[in-house]
Amino acid sequence: MTATQDSTVLSSLYQRSVADYWNTEQNPVNLRLGEVDGIYHHHYGIGEVDWTVLDGPAETRDERVIKELHRLESAQTDFLMSRLGPLEPHHRVMDAGSGRGGSSIVANLRFGCHVDGVSISESQVAFANEQARKRGVADKVRFHFRNMLDTGFESGTFQAIWNNESTMYVELSLLFAEHARLLSRGGRYVCITGCYNDAYGLPSRAISQINAHYICDIHPRSTYFKEMAANRLVPISVVDLTPATIPYWELRARTALATGIEQPFLDAYKNGSFQYLLIAADRA
Amino acid sequence: MTATQDSTVLSSLYQRSVADYWNTEQNPVNLRLGEVDGIYHHHYGIGEVDWTVLDGPAETRDERVIKELHRLESAQTDFLMSRLGPLEPHHRVMDAGSGRGGSSIVANLRFGCHVDGVSISESQVAFANEQARKRGVADKVRFHFRNMLDTGFESGTFQAIWNNESTMYVELSLLFAEHARLLSRGGRYVCITGCYNDAYGLPSRAISQINAHYICDIHPRSTYFKEMAANRLVPISVVDLTPATIPYWELRARTALATGIEQPFLDAYKNGSFQYLLIAADRA
Amino acid sequence: MTATQDSTVLSSLYQRSVADYWNTEQNPVNLRLGEVDGIYHHHYGIGEVDWTVLDGPAETRDERVIKELHRLESAQTDFLMSRLGPLEPHHRVMDAGSGRGGSSIVANLRFGCHVDGVSISESQVAFANEQARKRGVADKVRFHFRNMLDTGFESGTFQAIWNNESTMYVELSLLFAEHARLLSRGGRYVCITGCYNDAYGLPSRAISQINAHYICDIHPRSTYFKEMAANRLVPISVVDLTPATIPYWELRARTALATGIEQPFLDAYKNGSFQYLLIAADRA
Amino acid sequence: MTATQDSTVLSSLYQRSVADYWNTEQNPVNLRLGEVDGIYHHHYGIGEVDWTVLDGPAETRDERVIKELHRLESAQTDFLMSRLGPLEPHHRVMDAGSGRGGSSIVANLRFGCHVDGVSISESQVAFANEQARKRGVADKVRFHFRNMLDTGFESGTFQAIWNNESTMYVELSLLFAEHARLLSRGGRYVCITGCYNDAYGLPSRAISQINAHYICDIHPRSTYFKEMAANRLVPISVVDLTPATIPYWELRARTALATGIEQPFLDAYKNGSFQYLLIAADRA
Amino acid sequence: MTATQDSTVLSSLYQRSVADYWNTEQNPVNLRLGEVDGIYHHHYGIGEVDWTVLDGPAETRDERVIKELHRLESAQTDFLMSRLGPLEPHHRVMDAGSGRGGSSIVANLRFGCHVDGVSISESQVAFANEQARKRGVADKVRFHFRNMLDTGFESGTFQAIWNNESTMYVELSLLFAEHARLLSRGGRYVCITGCYNDAYGLPSRAISQINAHYICDIHPRSTYFKEMAANRLVPISVVDLTPATIPYWELRARTALATGIEQPFLDAYKNGSFQYLLIAADRA
Amino acid sequence: MTATQDSTVLSSLYQRSVADYWNTEQNPVNLRLGEVDGIYHHHYGIGEVDWTVLDGPAETRDERVIKELHRLESAQTDFLMSRLGPLEPHHRVMDAGSGRGGSSIVANLRFGCHVDGVSISESQVAFANEQARKRGVADKVRFHFRNMLDTGFESGTFQAIWNNESTMYVELSLLFAEHARLLSRGGRYVCITGCYNDAYGLPSRAISQINAHYICDIHPRSTYFKEMAANRLVPISVVDLTPATIPYWELRARTALATGIEQPFLDAYKNGSFQYLLIAADRA
Repeated sequence: MTATQDSTVLSSLYQRSVADYWNTEQNPVNLRLGEVDGIYHHHYGIGEVDWTVLDGPAETRDERVIKELHRLESAQTDFLMSRLGPLEPHHRVMDAGSGRGGSSIVANLRFGCHVDGVSISESQVAFANEQARKRGVADKVRFHFRNMLDTGFESGTFQAIWNNESTMYVELSLLFAEHARLLSRGGRYVCITGCYNDAYGLPSRAISQINAHYICDIHPRSTYFKEMAANRLVPISVVDLTPATIPYWELRARTALATGIEQPFLDAYKNGSFQYLLIAADRA
Repeated sequence: MTATQDSTVLSSLYQRSVADYWNTEQNPVNLRLGEVDGIYHHHYGIGEVDWTVLDGPAETRDERVIKELHRLESAQTDFLMSRLGPLEPHHRVMDAGSGRGGSSIVANLRFGCHVDGVSISESQVAFANEQARKRGVADKVRFHFRNMLDTGFESGTFQAIWNNESTMYVELSLLFAEHARLLSRGGRYVCITGCYNDAYGLPSRAISQINAHYICDIHPRSTYFKEMAANRLVPISVVDLTPATIPYWELRARTALATGIEQPFLDAYKNGSFQYLLIAADRA
Repeated sequence: MTATQDSTVLSSLYQRSVADYWNTEQNPVNLRLGEVDGIYHHHYGIGEVDWTVLDGPAETRDERVIKELHRLESAQTDFLMSRLGPLEPHHRVMDAGSGRGGSSIVANLRFGCHVDGVSISESQVAFANEQARKRGVADKVRFHFRNMLDTGFESGTFQAIWNNESTMYVELSLLFAEHARLLSRGGRYVCITGCYNDAYGLPSRAISQINAHYICDIHPRSTYFKEMAANRLVPISVVDLTPATIPYWELRARTALATGIEQPFLDAYKNGSFQYLLIAADRA
Repeated sequence: MTATQDSTVLSSLYQRSVADYWNTEQNPVNLRLGEVDGIYHHHYGIGEVDWTVLDGPAETRDERVIKELHRLESAQTDFLMSRLGPLEPHHRVMDAGSGRGGSSIVANLRFGCHVDGVSISESQVAFANEQARKRGVADKVRFHFRNMLDTGFESGTFQAIWNNESTMYVELSLLFAEHARLLSRGGRYVCITGCYNDAYGLPSRAISQINAHYICDIHPRSTYFKEMAANRLVPISVVDLTPATIPYWELRARTALATGIEQPFLDAYKNGSFQYLLIAADRA
Repeated sequence: MTATQDSTVLSSLYQRSVADYWNTEQNPVNLRLGEVDGIYHHHYGIGEVDWTVLDGPAETRDERVIKELHRLESAQTDFLMSRLGPLEPHHRVMDAGSGRGGSSIVANLRFGCHVDGVSISESQVAFANEQARKRGVADKVRFHFRNMLDTGFESGTFQAIWNNESTMYVELSLLFAEHARLLSRGGRYVCITGCYNDAYGLPSRAISQINAHYICDIHPRSTYFKEMAANRLVPISVVDLTPATIPYWELRARTALATGIEQPFLDAYKNGSFQYLLIAADRA
Repeated sequence: MTATQDSTVLSSLYQRSVADYWNTEQNPVNLRLGEVDGIYHHHYGIGEVDWTVLDGPAETRDERVIKELHRLESAQTDFLMSRLGPLEPHHRVMDAGSGRGGSSIVANLRFGCHVDGVSISESQVAFANEQARKRGVADKVRFHFRNMLDTGFESGTFQAIWNNESTMYVELSLLFAEHARLLSRGGRYVCITGCYNDAYGLPSRAISQINAHYICDIHPRSTYFKEMAANRLVPISVVDLTPATIPYWELRARTALATGIEQPFLDAYKNGSFQYLLIAADRA
C-alpha cells in the first residue's frame, strides 16, 4: 500500500489515530480468546456465566476463564447472526469494521455466503485474510483495507451488512448513508453496540472513560434511530442486551485478562447511563 | 355534551366517521370476549393456540373458543404491560384510544397506578367508566371523551402512555408530539400496532381491505420510527409479533365470531406486507 | 427479458404485484374505449356528459356510451397536454407510467416531440410499442420496460414529464427526486391524480376501497406539495377537477362497462374526502 | 398608542421603515380609485381593459381612467373572494395587511361575516376603521394596529385568512406559522401576490427596482409552497394571473396616475422573471 | 428548596450528577483566584503570560501565579463582555450557567444593567447571591436555582445572554431554543466554549479525558452552528481563541494549582482536535 | 464556444443576464485600478483611508485616488488570503467567480499553488487567462468558462476555495453543496460578501437598489450559516468588516470613478441593514 492509498482510506486525523491503536493492539483478552478455536472476535459476551470456572486448580484457571469468556463472546456473535435473515450461499454480505475477522468467518460457516470485511487497520486486515486462507475460505471471505464510510463497492451489492461493536468510531449519518446505498432493497442491517441512554441524559463519567480508553465516541441511542430514519433503514427488532452482558464483565473483572476498563463498563451499565443494544433493520 | 364540545374533540370529518363507527359497534367478538372476566379489550391475541377448544361438544364450542380468544388477547395486553417499566401506585399513566377500557383496568390492577383513558367514542367512554365504577376503581381509573391528539392534560403529567391498536386512526406526527409533551423526561411510551412493511413496498390489497373495514389508515413501519425520532421518543425494545398473532387469526377464522376481515389479515401477514409490532420507547 | 432484468425493474414485492395486475388486466372499459380511435388511455374523464347517449336504440347504446366516455377521457388528456408548456419537435418528454400508450401518442401528435414512455408492465409496454409502430411514429415514440423511480435516463434529458394517474403506485419522495434529476432547468412537470383531502382527515372507507381495487396507495394532497418543495418542483397551476370528473363517473356507473368501483369513487368525491387534481410545476 | 405598544407591534427596524412608508403614503392611484365607490383597495387589477376610456373628452379622461382602473382592481379582489370558500355570517375571517380596508369591507358585504383587519400602519388602521364606521359595519368589521406575524388572536379563531399583496413585507415562515395557528382545521387561506420565478433564476433587475420602490422583498415562488408545506397549508388552487394583470399595467402606464414603477412591472412580467399568482390552500 | 423543586430543576440523572459535582467542588484554582479581587470566575484565561511570575521568592510564588492566572481569566471574561453589544442600564441580561457569579458581577459593573444568573448548583447560587449582597448589587444582580433549558422567564425578556464555558453540560438544540425564546429580536448571544474540531474527526482521547474529568460532553464545533441556524441565532463574530488560551494552560500546568487535567487540554489543543472558541450571534 | 456549451454553463435566463452584464462591463473603477500593478480585482476595499490623496495637484488627483482605492481593495484580498490556511505549492485551490482574475494571481504569488478560476463571463475568462499568460503563470493559474454551481471538477480536488464578492449571484444551497463536494476533508472555504442583516429585518431600500444595480440578490446573513450547516462547512472565523469598508466607500464617493451606487452602500451600511462579512469555514 502506498501513502496515497493510505490517505484515501483514512480521511481524517482521528481515523489515523484509531488505525494506529488497532494496528498495534495486542491485548491478551482479544488474542488468547481467539486462540481457543481460531475465531478472533474482540467482542463482549452475553449470557449467563458459568462461575465454576473460577474454582478448581489455579494453574488452569486462566484457561478455563478464557474458554468461558470466548463462549460468551461467541454467543454474542451468534445472536447477531440469528438476526441477519434467511441468507443463502449466493448472497453477499459485508462486515463493517471486521477486526481480526471472527464474525465474517462465522457468517460464512453458518450461511455459506460471500463475505467482505472492511477495516481501517491494515494489520487487522492482514491477520484476518490469513485466517481465511488457513481455513480455506479465502475465495468467499475477503478482508479489505477500506473505510466503511466510503467502501467503493457498487450500489445494491449486499443482502446484509452488520457492525459488531464498530459504530462508535464513525459518524452515523455517513455510515448509514453508505449502508443504505450498499444494501439491496429489502436487505438487512444489524448492529450490536454500546450507546448512551438519552433518558439518563448526556454521557456519564464512566462513558467518557470508555471513550478515552478506546479513542471512540459512544453515540446516544437516539442518534441510531434518527439516522436510520433518515436513511431508509427501518427497525424490525431492538433488544436491550444490557442485563445479558453484565455477567460477562463481572467475570472478566475478576480475571488476569482484565484491561482496567471493566469497572467503567460495570458502573455505566448499572447506573443506567449506558446500554448494550442490538438493532436489526430493513432497507426500505 | 354539547355540540360545541363535540366539535372540539372531533376536529375533522374523518374523526367524526371513526367516532360514529365505534359509537355503534357491537361486534360479538368484542363484547362476548369481554364478558368472560369483565375486561373488555377489543385487541388481537398473541401466543400459541389451544386447538382442542374446537373439539368437544358443539353446544359449548363457542364458549370454549371465546375463552381461548380472550386468553390470547389478554396475553397481548399483558405483554404490552410488561414493557411499561417499573410503575408505582403514585404514577399517572395514559391509555390513548382506550376503547371499552380493558387495558386501563389491567394497568391499574397490575401497578395500582392512576390511569386516564381517552377516546373519541362517547359511548365507549361511558361504557368504560361504568366498568371502572363497577370494579370500584373509578377514583383511580377515569375515561375521558377527548382527542388523543389534543388532550388538554398538562405537560409532563404521565410516567407512561400506550396505544394498543389505536395509532392507525391518527397522524403519527401529531400523536407523538402530544405524547412527548405529556410524558415526563425518562417516561415510557409503548404501542402495539399493525403496520405495513416498507421493505415489501406500498400497501398490499389486503391492507387496503383492512383499512376499508375499520375506516383506518395503517401506517408504514418507517413512519413510526421517523416520527419518534422527531419527537424525542427513543426506542428501547422492538418486537415483531407477527408470528405470534397468526395463530389467533387462524383460530378466529374458524369460529362463529369471525367478522370477515380474518382472511385479509392472514393474507397480509403471510405475504410479508403487514406486520404486528410492539415498540417501546423512552422520552428523552 | 431475463429474470435479472425483471428484478432490476421491479425492486419490491409490491411492484411485482402491481405489474402482475396490469400485465393481465383486460377490462372492457379500458380496451373498448381505446378501440374508438386507437388511442388507449385508461384514464378518467372530465367535462359535461351528453346524457342523450343513454337514450335511443338499446343495441347501439353501448357503442354510444363508449364513444362518450372516450370523449371525456380524451378531454382529460388534452387538458393535461395544455399545461405542458410550449413544446417543440426537438424536445424530449417522458410519460411516467405510460400504460397502453395513449398520452404519449397524443403528445407526439400535438407537439411532434420525442416521447419516452415507461411502465413496469411488460405487456403494456409491448402493446404500446405496437401502437406506435402501427401509427408510424416508432422513431419518435418509444416505450420502455423501466421503473419510473430509476429510469436510467441521463440527467436533464427532458423538457417535460407527466404522470397521468400513475403517482399512486409509487413513493412521491422517490418519484419527484427522479423527475427533478431528469428535467432540464425550467422544464415542466404535470400530473393528474386522485388524492385524499387532508382537510377532511385520513382516508375515508371509500378511498381504501379504491386502493384495494387497484392495489394502489392514494396519497394525501399535502404530500404532493411537500415532496415537490423538497425536489425543486414549483407549482404554477393547480386545478381541482373534482366537479369536472363526477359526471364521467355518474355516466360510467350506469353502463355495462362499470367495474364496480364507480360507487366508491362517487362516494369519496361527494363526501369531500377525495379530490381529482391537476398540478403543473416548473423545475427550478 | 404608547411607545411601548408601538415597539411591540413593530419588532424590527425594517418594519418601522415599512410602517413609515405607509403612514405617509398618499398616492393618487390609491386614494382616487377608492373615491369612486368608497372601497379603498391599493391593489393591482386583472382582466381585459376597456381601452376606449383613453378616448373622448380630455377633461374627463382621468375620471374615466380612474373608474376603469378601479373596476380592474375590484375584479382582482372579487377573484380572491371567490376562493375563500362557502363563508357564513357567523364566521370570522382575517385580512392580513388590510391597508385602507377595501377587501375587508368587500368580504363583509359579500358574506356578512365578521372581519378583522390587521396592519402595522396606524394611519391606515384609523382610515379603515373610519370607513367601517361610515358604512355602519363597525360592529362586524374591525381594523387593528397589530403585526400579522404575532396577532394575539386565539388559536383556531378564523375560518378564512387572506393576504392581498401584503406577503412581500414579511418572512413567510413566520407568517404561515401564525396563519396555521389562527385557522381552524379545514379553514381556507388565500393570497394574491407577485413572486419571482425560480425557473427564470434569481431576481431580475426589474424585480429589485420594485423592491426598492416599495421597500419590500418579493419572494421566490418556491418559498410560498415550501413554507405552506411546512405549516399544514395545502394548496387547492393556484392560478397564474400574470397575463390577466398585464393590461392593467399597460393602461396605468399611459395615465397621469402612473407612479413610475409601471415599466419595471411590465418588464419583469414580460421577461418571465416575475409572476402574479393566486394561491388558495386548506388548513390540514 | 423542596425535593419537588429539585426534581423540577434537575430533569435527568445526568443533571443530578453535574449538580452534585459543582455543589461539592472546592478546587483551589477556582476559589483562590476569586479571592484576588472578589470576582469568582472558574474560567480559563487568554492572552500572553507574564512568565516572570515563576521567578522570585518561592514563598510568594503561588500568590504571584494566582494573580497572573486570575488576570488571564479576567481577560477572557472581558473579551466576552466586549461582544455583548451596546448594553444600557435598563437592559436585562442573562448569565446561563453562572457558577460562582463572576461574569454576572462584571457585566453589572461594566454596563450597569440587570443580570439574572442561573445555575443548577444550589451551593453556587447561594455563594453568588452572597457575593452580590456583599457588593451591594443584589437589587440588580440575582442568581437563581434554575435549569438554563427551562428558565421560566418570559419570552423576549433579555437583550443579551451568554454562556461562559457552560454549554458542554446541555443539549444545544434545547439550549438555543430557550435562548431564542428569551432574547428580544435583535438581542445578542455570546458563548465562549471548548469544542471538538470536526475537521479533525471524532473526539481525540484527550477530549474524552476532559469529559470524564468534568462529567461534561464537549460538542463538535459544527453543532453550535447547526443549532444556531435552527433557532434564529445568526453569527456575527467567531474567534478561534485556541492560540490565546494555550499560554494560560502552560502556566497553570507548572503551578501547585494544577488539577491534573492540564495535559489533556494541552494535548488536545496542540493536536488540532480541540478548539477554544468565541461565538457572538444576533437573534433574528 | 458553441451555443451548446453556452447553455450548459448558463443554466437559467438569470445567469444569462448576469453574464451579459459582466461580458460588457467596462467600469473605470474596475479597469483603472487593475492597471496600477496589473492585478485586476473588482473588489471593495478595507482599512483606513489616506485622505491626503484628495489634496495636491488636481491633474494627478485621479491617479492618487486610483492608487489608494487599489491599495484598499488589495488589502481586502490579502485579508481573505490570510484565512485560507497553510497552503503549499502542491495544493490546488479554486477561485469561484474569478472575474478578471486578480485574486487567483495573488494566491499563486503568495502560496505558489495551482489555481482554477471559474466564471460565467467568457470575456472575463479570456481577460484573466491573458493576464496569467503575461505573467508566465499560465501553467499553474487557469481560468475556465464554467458555472460555479456545477464545475465538473472531481470530488475532493481542492484544498481551499473562496468566493470574493460573488456569492450574491447564486443560490447558496447549490453553491455550498458543490463546494463541499469539491473540497477535501479538512479543506478551507472563505468568502467575503455583503449580506443583509436579519436582525434589522428584510432588505432595506438601499439594498434593493444595490441588487438592481448589479442584477444580484444579496442574501440574508442567516442563509450563509444555514446552508454551511447543511453542507458540512463549519465556520472557524467570522469577521464583521463593515466598519473597515466604510472609509473605502466614502473615498470612492468623492472621486470621478464613482458609479452612482456609492450612496446606497453607505446608507445601507450605516443604518444597520447591510454588513460586509468574512466567513472562513472548514470542510468537515
